[in-house]
Amino acid sequence: MEKLEIKTKVLSENQRIAEELREKFRANGVLVLNFISSPGSGKTELLERTLCALPPTTRVAVLTGDIQTDNDAKRIARAGFPVRQITTGGTCHLDGSMITRGLNELGIDLADLDVLFIENIGNLVCPASYDLGEEAKIVLLSVTEGEDKPLKYPSIFFKSALFLLTKVDLLPYVPFDADAAEANARLIHPAMEIIRCSATATGGLDQWLGWLHAKMKAARESALTASHTS
Amino acid sequence: MEKLEIKTKVLSENQRIAEELREKFRANGVLVLNFISSPGSGKTELLERTLCALPPTTRVAVLTGDIQTDNDAKRIARAGFPVRQITTGGTCHLDGSMITRGLNELGIDLADLDVLFIENIGNLVCPASYDLGEEAKIVLLSVTEGEDKPLKYPSIFFKSALFLLTKVDLLPYVPFDADAAEANARLIHPAMEIIRCSATATGGLDQWLGWLHAKMKAARESALTASHTS
Repeated sequence: MEKLEIKTKVLSENQRIAEELREKFRANGVLVLNFISSPGSGKTELLERTLCALPPTTRVAVLTGDIQTDNDAKRIARAGFPVRQITTGGTCHLDGSMITRGLNELGIDLADLDVLFIENIGNLVCPASYDLGEEAKIVLLSVTEGEDKPLKYPSIFFKSALFLLTKVDLLPYVPFDADAAEANARLIHPAMEIIRCSATATGGLDQWLGWLHAKMKAARESALTASHTS
Repeated sequence: MEKLEIKTKVLSENQRIAEELREKFRANGVLVLNFISSPGSGKTELLERTLCALPPTTRVAVLTGDIQTDNDAKRIARAGFPVRQITTGGTCHLDGSMITRGLNELGIDLADLDVLFIENIGNLVCPASYDLGEEAKIVLLSVTEGEDKPLKYPSIFFKSALFLLTKVDLLPYVPFDADAAEANARLIHPAMEIIRCSATATGGLDQWLGWLHAKMKAARESALTASHTS
C-alpha cells in the first residue's frame, strides 16, 4: 500500500511535467512522437530511415533512451540531425523530467523545431504509464514476434494512436498472421490506426511517411491558428 | 530517496522468499530455470518444443507469466504437462511470492518433480532484479533483434548462466551478426555459456537439450549426495 501511494505520487508529478511540456510543444507547433516497443522491434532502424527520407529543410531532433550505451544516438547521428542519448542507468522507462533535461542538453529553441522523435526504452510495459507530453504514442511490433502481443500488453496498445507493424519484408519466412495481429489490436483499441511497414524494402515506409507529414502539417497549422486567435 | 528505500525493502523481502524457494528446490533435486527475454524472442515456442522433446517419464511443470491473457499457458498445456499461468495484471516482472502461489495452485509435491520451467514476463529490464529461487536464469535473444542488446541490457546478460540465441534459421534473411552478438555478451559476462538454436529447424534444439539434460542430472545427483551426507 505504501509502495502504491508512492507510485501514484511519482505518476502525478510526472503528469504535471508532461502537461507543461505538451503546452510548450503545441504553442511552438512541434510534433512530438513517443516510440515504444520491445527491444528489437526496429525503433532505431525506423528512425534512421525516416530521418534520411525527410526533406532536408525539416527541423528535427531526436531523444533516444537506453538503459546503457549510446549506440542508438550514434546510429541516429549519422543522419546529421541533432540527437541526444538519455541513459537511464537501470530505469525501465523515460519520464517527463528526463525529456526536460534532454531538451536543455540539446540546446534547441522549440521555435526552431518541426518534429521531436522520442525513442523510449525497449520495453512494452513500463513506458506505457509515463506521459512525456507527446502528441502521440506509437507502438511498434515486428512480424517476428507473436500476433497476440496486443492482448498480452493491452495498456500500450490502448494508449497508442498508431500501431506500426514492422519488418513485413520477413512475412514470407515467419509463421506470423498479420491480419490476426491487427484484429487483436483493434479488440483493445478499435479506432487505432495501423500501418504495415518495412525499413528495408523499397517503398516500405511510404504510408508511414505520409502519416508523419500529415501530422506535422496539422501541428504547424494548429499552432498558427492558436497564435492568431490569442 | 523515499522511493529508493521502499524498492530496497521490496527487493530484500523478495530475496528472503527466493532463498527459501531455492533451498526447497535443491533439497528435492528439482532443476528450476527462469527464462527471460523481450516479448517475441521465442520463450513460449522454445518451451513447447522442449516439452515435446523430453522423455515422457520426465516430471516437468511450467509457470508462465504474463501481464494479461493465459494464451501461453494454453499453448504449453497442449504438450500435456502441468502448467499454471501467472497473470500479473500490470506488474512488469515475476517475484518470489508469485512463484510460491503458483506452485501451491499447481498442487504438485516438489518431490514428484524433475524440472520447473518459469517463463518470465516479456521484458529484458525489470525481471533481472528479482530472484525467483531458480538454479539459473536463461536469457533469450532472437536474430531479428540487434547484436548490441547485451550491451544495452547488461544486467540480465550478467546474471544469466546461459544465453540462447534463438531463431537462427532466420539468419539468411536478416542483417544480424551472430559472432558480434556473442562477443558483446562475453564483454558483459566472459564465462557465459552461449547456445545458438532454432525451435523450427531439424536438430535446432539438440545442443540446448543436451545442456538441459546435464543440468537435470546434476540437480538430481546433488540432492542425493546432500541427503546421504545429512
